Amino acid sequence: MNDFPLSQVYQLLEPGPVVLLTTADRGRANVMTLSWHMVVEFEPPLLACVVSSDDFSFAALRATGECVIAIPALELAAKTVEIGNVSGSKLDKFQTFGLTPVPAEQVAAPLIAECIANLECRVVDSRLVDTYNLFVMEVVQAWHDPEQAAAKTFHHQGYGRFVVDGDTLELASKMR
Amino acid sequence: MNDFPLSQVYQLLEPGPVVLLTTADRGRANVMTLSWHMVVEFEPPLLACVVSSDDFSFAALRATGECVIAIPALELAAKTVEIGNVSGSKLDKFQTFGLTPVPAEQVAAPLIAECIANLECRVVDSRLVDTYNLFVMEVVQAWHDPEQAAAKTFHHQGYGRFVVDGDTLELASKMR
Repeated sequence: MNDFPLSQVYQLLEPGPVVLLTTADRGRANVMTLSWHMVVEFEPPLLACVVSSDDFSFAALRATGECVIAIPALELAAKTVEIGNVSGSKLDKFQTFGLTPVPAEQVAAPLIAECIANLECRVVDSRLVDTYNLFVMEVVQAWHDPEQAAAKTFHHQGYGRFVVDGDTLELASKMR
Repeated sequence: MNDFPLSQVYQLLEPGPVVLLTTADRGRANVMTLSWHMVVEFEPPLLACVVSSDDFSFAALRATGECVIAIPALELAAKTVEIGNVSGSKLDKFQTFGLTPVPAEQVAAPLIAECIANLECRVVDSRLVDTYNLFVMEVVQAWHDPEQAAAKTFHHQGYGRFVVDGDTLELASKMR
């Protein structure tokens, strides 16, 4: 994985792909599936995400204030759904689903070797956690797999129905 | 447009499409382009979005606490980008871009007749507005155009590059 410019992180998440979120709490790593996330600021890159307090990852994220957002390609879709179907309270999901945890540089949560990109995140604002389980995070380091530069992502439409990236379109936008 | 169940609203936004956001402030309607949004709760449906304080719509959204999130199909992609390229401070974007404003039922902001779906929203939490321009909103009424049931949406990857919905994928998910 190559170092990825923080100024371009928003381009990875703004399209709304399904992502994986890893945590590590007292030496125990876990991973969950997540679609409720958005970009909050370009640079330094800020994100928001909602992690249900019913999810096993919630306590780890709140306690450590750290996570990794990893973006899986289409090839990982089936695994990504299975990861979302079971709780990390019961098993080691990295081992069960054959994902390779890689030590991150700035956070305790692991990167996922198989993913297109990995974003090391630190929680910077917890004001909306109690009310909405909404975390605001800063991406402090980002990684990208150059071999997956053309990989397609997928987006959740509810109840296990996903839409895969199709054609691309170039329009004369002044929007960054 | 047909009434759309509030319990299914998350299915429209969770995939991360580019959307339009309308406001109406002292009788003046405006529309902007937005990609920084996410689902916060299933039902009642809550959303979060970031509207830059540099945008003309920001003051209207903050002052009125109301907006409509409208989802454009691929056919509106060029118009959607043009809408994002100019400020409503200078012109009537509905007229300029040939969009039809339709009175909403519960908010002053207009629906957009040409869009796949329209979500009438009320701001319910402004705690993160000053820091991040982040609004939490409740969808109080939703509309869907049955003639656009198969319409494709598009997702912004930055700098006017968009990815269009491609194939769909059905996987045995327990995730709602």
